[in-house]
Amino acid sequence: MQYLFTTQSDFQTVFKRLLTARAMDTSAVKEPVTEILENIKKNGNIALCDYTKRFDRLSLTPQTLRVTDKEIEAACKQIPAELMDALDVAAKRIKAFHKKQLPPNLHYEDDSGFELGYRWLPMDSAGLYVPGGTAAYPSSVLMNAIPAKVAGVQRLAMCVPTPDGQLNPLVLAAAHKAGITEIYRIGGAQAIAALAFGTETIAPVDYIVGPGNAYVAEAKRQVYGLVGIDSVAGPSEVVVVADKDNDPTHIALDLLAQSEHDKMAQSIFITNNKKFADQVIKAVNKQLEILTRKEIAQVSWDHHGAVIVVDSWKEAANLINQIAPEHLELMVKESNTLFEDVRHAGAIFIGKWCPEAIGDYVGGPNHVLPTSGAARFSSGLSIFDFMKRTTFLKSNKKGIQNVGPAAVAIANTEGLTAHALSISQRLKSLSK
Amino acid sequence: MQYLFTTQSDFQTVFKRLLTARAMDTSAVKEPVTEILENIKKNGNIALCDYTKRFDRLSLTPQTLRVTDKEIEAACKQIPAELMDALDVAAKRIKAFHKKQLPPNLHYEDDSGFELGYRWLPMDSAGLYVPGGTAAYPSSVLMNAIPAKVAGVQRLAMCVPTPDGQLNPLVLAAAHKAGITEIYRIGGAQAIAALAFGTETIAPVDYIVGPGNAYVAEAKRQVYGLVGIDSVAGPSEVVVVADKDNDPTHIALDLLAQSEHDKMAQSIFITNNKKFADQVIKAVNKQLEILTRKEIAQVSWDHHGAVIVVDSWKEAANLINQIAPEHLELMVKESNTLFEDVRHAGAIFIGKWCPEAIGDYVGGPNHVLPTSGAARFSSGLSIFDFMKRTTFLKSNKKGIQNVGPAAVAIANTEGLTAHALSISQRLKSLSK
Repeated sequence: MQYLFTTQSDFQTVFKRLLTARAMDTSAVKEPVTEILENIKKNGNIALCDYTKRFDRLSLTPQTLRVTDKEIEAACKQIPAELMDALDVAAKRIKAFHKKQLPPNLHYEDDSGFELGYRWLPMDSAGLYVPGGTAAYPSSVLMNAIPAKVAGVQRLAMCVPTPDGQLNPLVLAAAHKAGITEIYRIGGAQAIAALAFGTETIAPVDYIVGPGNAYVAEAKRQVYGLVGIDSVAGPSEVVVVADKDNDPTHIALDLLAQSEHDKMAQSIFITNNKKFADQVIKAVNKQLEILTRKEIAQVSWDHHGAVIVVDSWKEAANLINQIAPEHLELMVKESNTLFEDVRHAGAIFIGKWCPEAIGDYVGGPNHVLPTSGAARFSSGLSIFDFMKRTTFLKSNKKGIQNVGPAAVAIANTEGLTAHALSISQRLKSLSK
Repeated sequence: MQYLFTTQSDFQTVFKRLLTARAMDTSAVKEPVTEILENIKKNGNIALCDYTKRFDRLSLTPQTLRVTDKEIEAACKQIPAELMDALDVAAKRIKAFHKKQLPPNLHYEDDSGFELGYRWLPMDSAGLYVPGGTAAYPSSVLMNAIPAKVAGVQRLAMCVPTPDGQLNPLVLAAAHKAGITEIYRIGGAQAIAALAFGTETIAPVDYIVGPGNAYVAEAKRQVYGLVGIDSVAGPSEVVVVADKDNDPTHIALDLLAQSEHDKMAQSIFITNNKKFADQVIKAVNKQLEILTRKEIAQVSWDHHGAVIVVDSWKEAANLINQIAPEHLELMVKESNTLFEDVRHAGAIFIGKWCPEAIGDYVGGPNHVLPTSGAARFSSGLSIFDFMKRTTFLKSNKKGIQNVGPAAVAIANTEGLTAHALSISQRLKSLSK
């Protein structure tokens, strides 16, 4: 962990290094991923089953690629009722928030003779990738699937690797809650390829969402254009800003909630009080001891954690905007002012009763958020990911007569004769 | 050109082939692009000037990378007043349409104890790539720059290659109209790298838009994630649907307006009347002769053009949805019904007085549109490209007490102890 003061002379240098140290590099897997994609594209199911045998030690046939309804049903039955209820609370709140996002169409007439606007429509199909192993989170299934459903996507196909054939019942239960019925037990770059290109049994999708390892991320990047993708997610982070009027243990746990995700995760604590900073650091070290994923959290905190003591919240806002954090917690008296000064953040959690973990599960806003500074230019997952606009333009005779000549002038200067003629011939026939 | 009838027995096979024949393959330039990106990232200006010398035969120094205000001024003076007025008409209409897109923020309280919503903000900076040579279109400068300006992007940096030092005055004049002052005379993958990574004189940007050749497209794909990009554009297309109550010459010119762009462009004509189809084909052959870019249009029409005779407009809608065309013209009596049935298209032009070329220049909606079927999952350029949402969540004590236990249950089942504790410790301190 780095303990920094904005007043120290080398602050900017150290701070900049903190921001750039964690970029995910997928260049090492570029070539193997290209090979996997080409193989699936060419050989479909055979290649898909081959890779699954090789990487997941699981023998599949085209007939057993898909998880059966019975398996989904059986999984749901295994889950304690209390947990099913908890997933229900989460699903309902996520659904309510995403319903509010449904964007209005645009349709108006202008005084030049045009009717114009745009119409939002959902895409037809989307693929949802769910990682296997320790990072298989039922909450992610809800967060990825519900926006698609709310947007009106008709077909949702989910892929989840099942190493050694092990199905994660929680993931299946969450899929069931989200209304997903089409689930394949495949993973890695081969699953992304199957979703993008299709195979004999898996119809291709229009859009692919969901997190994954470097292979999955690189595969998504390579199929981007043929299909849409949500983002290429990198290691994630939290910035917690708190004044001394907080419980150091709460702050410590909020920082560790990020650190326990991943050794590459980053937790940054910003405060204006050195004494309080010391108390939080002490609390972090104490709480670390009781974590199930202590080892991961420890590496993350040691290598990428930071505590920064600032002179003012204005200064804090400036640092936050440079970090453009995925998650931001504001627990200071002046939270409202500070909130106004933050331009770049994926999601902001305000007040001492709103730890980021609430947002991970049951807040309502999406937990799939731009990581590693991508909040500078992108947003969390939403129904906008699953919808697209078609613009339209309708002209009456007056319309083309009003603005047609300007278009002809530009078309001619661009050397595009047919463009110009398609307008000028119409103008001519109107002037007859 | 292929002349097809939906009633012919091999229609589906031939139609499918028509849709897949044009995909842009950038795999051949993957490696050289990676090398260029790495070189610029490591060596900045030196590498940038080297590549410009090699590819554009132009000797630059860090001091002469940027186009001066005087050069921009001089360019504007060269342009005839009539053309400047035409650019004005275009700019004003584009601005008016994009202003209507400004999305509302969301902010509400729910009855569980939460205040939540999201806030839209523009990104800080964007880079605009403008191709050099024959495809340097002033209209593209307006279409790319104005949405960024309307969104509120503070800094807009433009790159345009100037082979042999030739500046295109029209491009500079359009940039001036759009309010761009930061222009660099660089192009290709090296320009994309400079925008993404920055050099000693060019500050990095958050987002890159604009069309380009295979090198530019592949470079955008490779920097995606570090910065945002608009899309990886492929060859473009138009579908024109018209009944016999139209002038065959107008239809022919609309088809050729697409064909003259690029040898890979695709123009598809759909009608329900064989006689009218014959007339349009004849008109295409006649109009081809008078085009400045005849050779390009001829190749496009011969290799990728198609005329399809359908039995009904329902059938037409079905074909359109499979094509998901960039541009769609509807010139049939039943345009309104047909419009409702189209789910996938970048932009739709309705009525016989609204050729697509109007939309290219002065319609108002953007002419940067999803190509090659990408309208299935993506939209034309808009101010949404230049804005991002930050969600927020604020909980009072009641909020965490209401839904905290559900979050703790899920966190525990996911094995994330710190997540669970960050909530349960707060619940404990509240119950004291």
